[in-house]
Amino acid sequence: METNIRMDIQTFVAQSIGRWRSQRSGHNLAFQHFEEVRSVVDIAARAADDADVIELCKNNGVDPALATSPFFMKWDAESDWDEDEKTTGSCLLVPVPDLKNTSRGQLLRSQGYAEKMPAVGEYRFTEEGMFVLVTPYEQAAAEERIWFATQNLRLRVSNILTSSGTGVLTTSFASEVRSLSQ
Amino acid sequence: METNIRMDIQTFVAQSIGRWRSQRSGHNLAFQHFEEVRSVVDIAARAADDADVIELCKNNGVDPALATSPFFMKWDAESDWDEDEKTTGSCLLVPVPDLKNTSRGQLLRSQGYAEKMPAVGEYRFTEEGMFVLVTPYEQAAAEERIWFATQNLRLRVSNILTSSGTGVLTTSFASEVRSLSQ
Repeated sequence: METNIRMDIQTFVAQSIGRWRSQRSGHNLAFQHFEEVRSVVDIAARAADDADVIELCKNNGVDPALATSPFFMKWDAESDWDEDEKTTGSCLLVPVPDLKNTSRGQLLRSQGYAEKMPAVGEYRFTEEGMFVLVTPYEQAAAEERIWFATQNLRLRVSNILTSSGTGVLTTSFASEVRSLSQ
Repeated sequence: METNIRMDIQTFVAQSIGRWRSQRSGHNLAFQHFEEVRSVVDIAARAADDADVIELCKNNGVDPALATSPFFMKWDAESDWDEDEKTTGSCLLVPVPDLKNTSRGQLLRSQGYAEKMPAVGEYRFTEEGMFVLVTPYEQAAAEERIWFATQNLRLRVSNILTSSGTGVLTTSFASEVRSLSQ
Protein backbone atom coordinates (compact mmCIF):
# COMPACT_ATOMS: atom_id res chain seq x y z
CA MET A 1 0.00 0.00 0.00
CA GLU A 2 1.48 3.35 -1.03
CA THR A 3 1.22 6.49 1.04
CA ASN A 4 -0.31 9.76 -0.07
CA ILE A 5 -2.75 8.24 -2.51
CA ARG A 6 -5.54 10.75 -3.07
CA MET A 7 -8.29 8.17 -3.20
CA ASP A 8 -11.81 9.16 -4.12
CA ILE A 9 -15.02 7.18 -4.04
CA GLN A 10 -15.21 6.78 -7.82
CA THR A 11 -11.82 5.02 -7.94
CA PHE A 12 -12.55 2.95 -4.86
CA VAL A 13 -15.90 1.71 -6.16
CA ALA A 14 -14.43 1.00 -9.61
CA GLN A 15 -11.73 -1.19 -7.99
CA SER A 16 -14.40 -2.99 -5.98
CA ILE A 17 -16.66 -3.96 -8.89
CA GLY A 18 -16.66 -7.70 -9.57
CA ARG A 19 -17.03 -11.04 -7.88
CA TRP A 20 -15.07 -11.73 -4.70
CA ARG A 21 -14.49 -14.92 -2.75
CA SER A 22 -14.58 -13.89 0.87
CA GLN A 23 -13.25 -15.51 4.04
CA ARG A 24 -14.57 -13.79 7.10
CA SER A 25 -13.53 -14.41 10.70
CA GLY A 26 -15.64 -12.99 13.48
CA HIS A 27 -14.24 -12.57 16.99
CA ASN A 28 -16.63 -12.30 19.89
CA LEU A 29 -14.38 -10.52 22.37
CA ALA A 30 -16.18 -11.37 25.61
CA PHE A 31 -16.36 -15.10 24.94
CA GLN A 32 -13.27 -15.50 22.72
CA HIS A 33 -15.51 -17.26 20.23
CA PHE A 34 -14.53 -17.56 16.55
CA GLU A 35 -16.95 -17.52 13.65
CA GLU A 36 -15.89 -18.57 10.15
CA VAL A 37 -17.84 -17.70 7.03
CA ARG A 38 -16.96 -18.29 3.40
CA SER A 39 -19.04 -16.40 0.90
CA VAL A 40 -19.24 -15.06 -2.61
CA VAL A 41 -19.73 -11.31 -2.82
CA ASP A 42 -20.85 -9.62 -6.03
CA ILE A 43 -20.45 -5.89 -6.40
CA ALA A 44 -22.05 -4.25 -9.43
CA ALA A 45 -22.29 -0.62 -10.53
CA ARG A 46 -25.71 1.01 -10.67
CA ALA A 47 -26.59 3.96 -12.87
CA ALA A 48 -26.92 7.27 -11.01
CA ASP A 49 -30.41 7.67 -12.51
CA ASP A 50 -31.54 4.20 -11.42
CA ALA A 51 -35.00 4.39 -9.82
CA ASP A 52 -33.85 2.65 -6.61
CA VAL A 53 -30.92 5.07 -6.28
CA ILE A 54 -33.21 8.06 -6.68
CA GLU A 55 -35.65 6.63 -4.13
CA LEU A 56 -32.92 5.96 -1.55
CA CYS A 57 -31.65 9.53 -1.98
CA LYS A 58 -35.13 10.98 -1.58
CA ASN A 59 -35.82 8.86 1.52
CA ASN A 60 -32.71 10.43 3.06
CA GLY A 61 -33.41 13.98 1.95
CA VAL A 62 -30.45 13.94 -0.44
CA ASP A 63 -30.49 15.53 -3.90
CA PRO A 64 -30.15 12.53 -6.30
CA ALA A 65 -27.83 14.65 -8.48
CA LEU A 66 -25.19 14.28 -5.72
CA ALA A 67 -25.18 10.45 -5.86
CA THR A 68 -21.75 9.26 -7.05
CA SER A 69 -20.85 5.72 -8.13
CA PRO A 70 -23.81 3.92 -6.59
CA PHE A 71 -23.39 0.16 -6.36
CA PHE A 72 -25.27 -2.98 -5.47
CA MET A 73 -23.78 -5.71 -3.28
CA LYS A 74 -25.05 -9.21 -2.80
CA TRP A 75 -23.53 -12.02 -0.81
CA ASP A 76 -24.08 -15.72 -0.58
CA ALA A 77 -22.53 -17.67 2.28
CA GLU A 78 -21.20 -21.05 1.26
CA SER A 79 -20.42 -22.87 4.50
CA ASP A 80 -19.53 -22.72 8.16
CA TRP A 81 -22.10 -20.15 9.11
CA ASP A 82 -24.04 -20.08 12.34
CA GLU A 83 -27.57 -21.46 12.22
CA ASP A 84 -29.03 -18.01 12.64
CA GLU A 85 -26.65 -16.31 10.20
CA LYS A 86 -28.46 -15.00 7.17
CA THR A 87 -26.95 -16.87 4.26
CA THR A 88 -27.83 -14.52 1.43
CA GLY A 89 -28.44 -10.83 1.34
CA SER A 90 -28.19 -7.74 -0.77
CA CYS A 91 -27.87 -4.05 -0.31
CA LEU A 92 -27.89 -0.89 -2.42
CA LEU A 93 -25.19 1.63 -1.49
CA VAL A 94 -25.13 5.24 -2.58
CA PRO A 95 -22.09 7.43 -1.86
CA VAL A 96 -22.67 11.17 -1.53
CA PRO A 97 -19.27 12.90 -1.48
CA ASP A 98 -18.77 16.09 0.49
CA LEU A 99 -18.70 18.90 -2.06
CA LYS A 100 -15.87 20.70 -0.26
CA ASN A 101 -13.68 17.64 0.44
CA THR A 102 -14.13 14.70 -1.92
CA SER A 103 -12.14 12.38 0.31
CA ARG A 104 -15.14 12.35 2.67
CA GLY A 105 -18.86 11.92 2.38
CA GLN A 106 -21.99 10.06 3.33
CA LEU A 107 -22.87 6.51 2.40
CA LEU A 108 -26.56 5.72 2.17
CA ARG A 109 -27.56 2.08 2.36
CA SER A 110 -30.81 0.32 1.87
CA GLN A 111 -29.95 -2.12 4.66
CA GLY A 112 -27.49 -1.76 7.51
CA TYR A 113 -24.64 -4.02 8.59
CA ALA A 114 -25.29 -4.14 12.35
CA GLU A 115 -29.05 -3.79 12.16
CA LYS A 116 -31.42 -4.70 9.35
CA MET A 117 -32.67 -1.24 8.55
CA PRO A 118 -31.66 1.55 6.20
CA ALA A 119 -28.64 3.40 7.49
CA VAL A 120 -26.50 6.42 6.72
CA GLY A 121 -22.77 6.30 7.43
CA GLU A 122 -19.95 8.82 7.23
CA TYR A 123 -16.92 7.77 5.21
CA ARG A 124 -13.46 9.15 4.70
CA PHE A 125 -10.29 8.01 2.97
CA THR A 126 -7.01 8.03 4.85
CA GLU A 127 -3.80 9.28 3.26
CA GLU A 128 -3.10 5.65 2.28
CA GLY A 129 -6.40 5.30 0.44
CA MET A 130 -8.00 3.20 3.20
CA PHE A 131 -11.78 3.60 3.27
CA VAL A 132 -13.12 4.19 6.80
CA LEU A 133 -16.86 4.12 7.38
CA VAL A 134 -18.63 4.89 10.64
CA THR A 135 -22.32 4.10 10.82
CA PRO A 136 -24.42 4.87 13.90
CA TYR A 137 -27.31 2.53 14.63
CA GLU A 138 -29.93 2.67 17.35
CA GLN A 139 -28.28 0.04 19.55
CA ALA A 140 -24.68 0.16 18.34
CA ALA A 141 -22.28 1.74 15.89
CA ALA A 142 -20.16 0.07 13.23
CA GLU A 143 -16.68 1.09 12.13
CA GLU A 144 -15.48 -0.53 8.93
CA ARG A 145 -12.08 -0.23 7.30
CA ILE A 146 -11.61 -1.49 3.76
CA TRP A 147 -8.40 -1.42 1.78
CA PHE A 148 -6.74 -3.09 -1.17
CA ALA A 149 -3.63 -5.10 -0.31
CA THR A 150 -3.28 -5.71 -4.07
CA GLN A 151 -5.63 -4.98 -6.99
CA ASN A 152 -7.18 -8.40 -6.41
CA LEU A 153 -7.19 -8.62 -2.61
CA ARG A 154 -9.56 -6.46 -0.57
CA LEU A 155 -9.30 -6.54 3.21
CA ARG A 156 -11.99 -5.43 5.60
CA VAL A 157 -12.03 -4.98 9.37
CA SER A 158 -15.42 -4.28 10.97
CA ASN A 159 -15.94 -3.37 14.59
CA ILE A 160 -19.31 -3.25 16.29
CA LEU A 161 -19.07 -0.62 19.00
CA THR A 162 -21.37 0.09 21.91
CA SER A 163 -23.65 2.99 21.07
CA SER A 164 -21.55 5.28 23.25
CA GLY A 165 -18.59 4.41 21.02
CA THR A 166 -16.30 3.57 23.93
CA GLY A 167 -16.37 -0.23 23.76
CA VAL A 168 -16.04 -2.83 21.03
CA LEU A 169 -18.41 -5.81 21.17
CA THR A 170 -17.27 -7.85 18.21
CA THR A 171 -14.65 -7.44 15.55
CA SER A 172 -14.38 -9.24 12.24
CA PHE A 173 -11.91 -9.55 9.42
CA ALA A 174 -12.67 -10.42 5.83
CA SER A 175 -10.18 -11.21 3.09
CA GLU A 176 -11.77 -10.95 -0.32
CA VAL A 177 -9.98 -12.39 -3.35
CA ARG A 178 -11.17 -11.33 -6.78
CA SER A 179 -12.68 -14.24 -8.66
CA LEU A 180 -11.18 -14.12 -12.13
CA SER A 181 -13.57 -16.71 -13.55
CA GLN A 182 -17.14 -15.45 -13.30
CA MET B 1 -9.91 6.15 16.02
CA GLU B 2 -9.21 9.85 15.69
CA THR B 3 -7.51 11.43 12.72
CA ASN B 4 -4.35 13.51 12.77
CA ILE B 5 -2.88 11.88 15.83
CA ARG B 6 0.85 12.48 15.78
CA MET B 7 1.77 9.07 17.13
CA ASP B 8 5.34 8.25 18.02
CA ILE B 9 6.94 4.97 18.97
CA GLN B 10 7.28 5.87 22.66
CA THR B 11 3.52 6.41 23.02
CA PHE B 12 2.68 3.34 20.96
CA VAL B 13 4.95 1.04 22.95
CA ALA B 14 3.69 2.50 26.24
CA GLN B 15 0.09 1.70 25.21
CA SER B 16 1.14 -1.82 24.25
CA ILE B 17 2.80 -2.78 27.54
CA GLY B 18 0.85 -5.41 29.45
CA ARG B 19 -0.83 -8.76 29.09
CA TRP B 20 -3.16 -9.33 26.15
CA ARG B 21 -5.58 -12.15 25.38
CA SER B 22 -5.32 -12.65 21.65
CA GLN B 23 -7.64 -14.28 19.13
CA ARG B 24 -5.93 -14.74 15.79
CA SER B 25 -7.52 -15.89 12.56
CA GLY B 26 -5.27 -16.89 9.69
CA HIS B 27 -6.59 -17.04 6.13
CA ASN B 28 -4.76 -19.13 3.58
CA LEU B 29 -5.94 -17.40 0.44
CA ALA B 30 -5.24 -20.15 -2.11
CA PHE B 31 -7.04 -22.89 -0.19
CA GLN B 32 -9.57 -20.75 1.70
CA HIS B 33 -8.39 -22.45 4.87
CA PHE B 34 -8.99 -20.87 8.29
CA GLU B 35 -6.65 -21.15 11.23
CA GLU B 36 -7.73 -20.16 14.75
CA VAL B 37 -5.30 -19.48 17.58
CA ARG B 38 -5.98 -18.20 21.07
CA SER B 39 -2.95 -17.00 22.96
CA VAL B 40 -1.70 -14.86 25.78
CA VAL B 41 0.76 -12.17 24.74
CA ASP B 42 2.95 -10.38 27.26
CA ILE B 43 4.68 -7.15 26.28
CA ALA B 44 7.21 -5.72 28.72
CA ALA B 45 9.49 -2.69 28.51
CA ARG B 46 13.24 -3.23 28.47
CA ALA B 47 15.81 -0.69 29.57
CA ALA B 48 17.69 1.02 26.74
CA ASP B 49 20.96 -0.03 28.37
CA ASP B 50 19.91 -3.69 28.68
CA ALA B 51 22.73 -5.98 27.50
CA ASP B 52 20.50 -7.79 24.97
CA VAL B 53 19.32 -4.47 23.52
CA ILE B 54 22.89 -3.28 23.10
CA GLU B 55 23.91 -6.57 21.49
CA LEU B 56 20.99 -6.50 19.01
CA CYS B 57 21.89 -2.92 18.04
CA LYS B 58 25.55 -3.82 17.54
CA ASN B 59 24.65 -6.89 15.46
CA ASN B 60 22.73 -4.56 13.14
CA GLY B 61 25.37 -1.83 13.01
CA VAL B 62 23.12 0.57 14.94
CA ASP B 63 24.36 2.96 17.63
CA PRO B 64 22.72 1.69 20.87
CA ALA B 65 22.16 5.32 21.91
CA LEU B 66 19.47 5.51 19.19
CA ALA B 67 17.40 2.63 20.64
CA THR B 68 14.01 3.98 21.80
CA SER B 69 11.44 2.13 23.93
CA PRO B 70 12.79 -1.39 23.44
CA PHE B 71 10.39 -4.12 24.49
CA PHE B 72 10.17 -7.85 24.93
CA MET B 73 7.22 -9.90 23.67
CA LYS B 74 6.34 -13.44 24.56
CA TRP B 75 3.35 -15.46 23.53
CA ASP B 76 1.78 -18.68 24.64
CA ALA B 77 -0.87 -20.33 22.50
CA GLU B 78 -3.71 -21.86 24.48
CA SER B 79 -5.66 -23.96 22.02
CA ASP B 80 -6.72 -24.64 18.44
CA TRP B 81 -3.28 -24.38 16.90
CA ASP B 82 -1.94 -26.47 14.09
CA GLU B 83 0.29 -29.37 15.03
CA ASP B 84 3.32 -27.62 13.56
CA GLU B 85 2.49 -24.24 15.04
CA LYS B 86 5.01 -23.17 17.63
CA THR B 87 3.05 -22.80 20.84
CA THR B 88 5.34 -20.49 22.74
CA GLY B 89 7.87 -17.95 21.61
CA SER B 90 9.53 -14.72 22.51
CA CYS B 91 11.22 -11.86 20.76
CA LEU B 92 13.17 -8.73 21.66
CA LEU B 93 12.17 -5.67 19.63
CA VAL B 94 14.20 -2.48 19.38
CA PRO B 95 12.74 0.60 17.63
CA VAL B 96 15.22 3.03 16.11
CA PRO B 97 13.32 6.18 15.07
CA ASP B 98 14.42 8.21 12.08
CA LEU B 99 16.17 11.29 13.48
CA LYS B 100 14.59 13.55 10.86
CA ASN B 101 11.04 12.16 11.03
CA THR B 102 10.07 10.50 14.29
CA SER B 103 6.89 9.01 12.80
CA ARG B 104 9.16 6.55 10.95
CA GLY B 105 12.06 4.30 11.76
CA GLN B 106 13.56 0.86 11.86
CA LEU B 107 12.46 -2.01 14.06
CA LEU B 108 15.16 -4.54 14.95
CA ARG B 109 13.98 -7.93 16.13
CA SER B 110 15.81 -10.86 17.54
CA GLN B 111 13.49 -13.24 15.69
CA GLY B 112 11.34 -12.64 12.65
CA TYR B 113 7.64 -13.24 12.08
CA ALA B 114 7.73 -14.99 8.69
CA GLU B 115 11.09 -16.66 9.15
CA LYS B 116 12.87 -17.67 12.33
CA MET B 117 15.86 -15.39 12.04
CA PRO B 118 16.73 -11.89 13.18
CA ALA B 119 15.07 -9.28 11.00
CA VAL B 120 15.00 -5.54 10.44
CA GLY B 121 11.74 -3.88 9.42
CA GLU B 122 10.78 -0.35 8.44
CA TYR B 123 7.89 1.19 10.36
CA ARG B 124 5.80 4.29 9.98
CA PHE B 125 2.72 5.73 11.64
CA THR B 126 -0.21 6.86 9.55
CA GLU B 127 -2.08 10.10 10.23
CA GLU B 128 -4.51 8.03 12.35
CA GLY B 129 -1.74 6.63 14.53
CA MET B 130 -1.83 3.20 12.88
CA PHE B 131 1.54 1.43 13.08
CA VAL B 132 2.60 -0.06 9.72
CA LEU B 133 5.63 -2.33 9.60
CA VAL B 134 7.19 -3.82 6.47
CA THR B 135 9.82 -6.49 6.98
CA PRO B 136 11.67 -8.09 4.07
CA TYR B 137 12.75 -11.72 4.50
CA GLU B 138 14.72 -13.96 2.19
CA GLN B 139 11.70 -15.83 0.86
CA ALA B 140 8.89 -13.39 1.57
CA ALA B 141 7.98 -10.04 3.07
CA ALA B 142 5.59 -9.25 5.89
CA GLU B 143 3.36 -6.20 6.20
CA GLU B 144 1.80 -5.69 9.61
CA ARG B 145 -0.70 -3.05 10.68
CA ILE B 146 -1.41 -2.54 14.36
CA TRP B 147 -3.84 -0.07 15.83
CA PHE B 148 -5.82 0.57 18.99
CA ALA B 149 -9.60 0.40 18.57
CA THR B 150 -9.82 1.44 22.22
CA GLN B 151 -7.16 1.74 24.95
CA ASN B 152 -7.76 -1.92 25.77
CA LEU B 153 -8.27 -3.42 22.30
CA ARG B 154 -5.35 -3.75 19.91
CA LEU B 155 -6.01 -4.97 16.37
CA ARG B 156 -3.40 -6.40 14.05
CA VAL B 157 -3.54 -7.38 10.37
CA SER B 158 -0.50 -9.24 9.00
CA ASN B 159 0.06 -10.07 5.35
CA ILE B 160 2.76 -12.39 4.08
CA LEU B 161 3.70 -11.18 0.62
CA THR B 162 5.71 -12.89 -2.10
CA SER B 163 9.27 -11.60 -2.07
CA SER B 164 8.51 -9.48 -5.14
CA GLY B 165 5.80 -7.77 -3.07
CA THR B 166 3.11 -8.19 -5.72
CA GLY B 167 1.15 -11.08 -4.23
CA VAL B 168 -0.24 -11.95 -0.83
CA LEU B 169 0.10 -15.56 0.34
CA THR B 170 -1.64 -15.48 3.69
CA THR B 171 -3.32 -12.83 5.73
CA SER B 172 -4.17 -12.92 9.41
CA PHE B 173 -6.10 -10.85 11.89
CA ALA B 174 -5.57 -10.67 15.63
CA SER B 175 -7.78 -8.98 18.19
CA GLU B 176 -5.96 -8.46 21.45
CA VAL B 177 -7.90 -7.56 24.59
CA ARG B 178 -5.98 -6.20 27.55
CA SER B 179 -6.08 -8.59 30.45
CA LEU B 180 -6.92 -6.51 33.51
CA SER B 181 -6.16 -9.32 35.98
CA GLN B 182 -2.54 -10.37 35.66
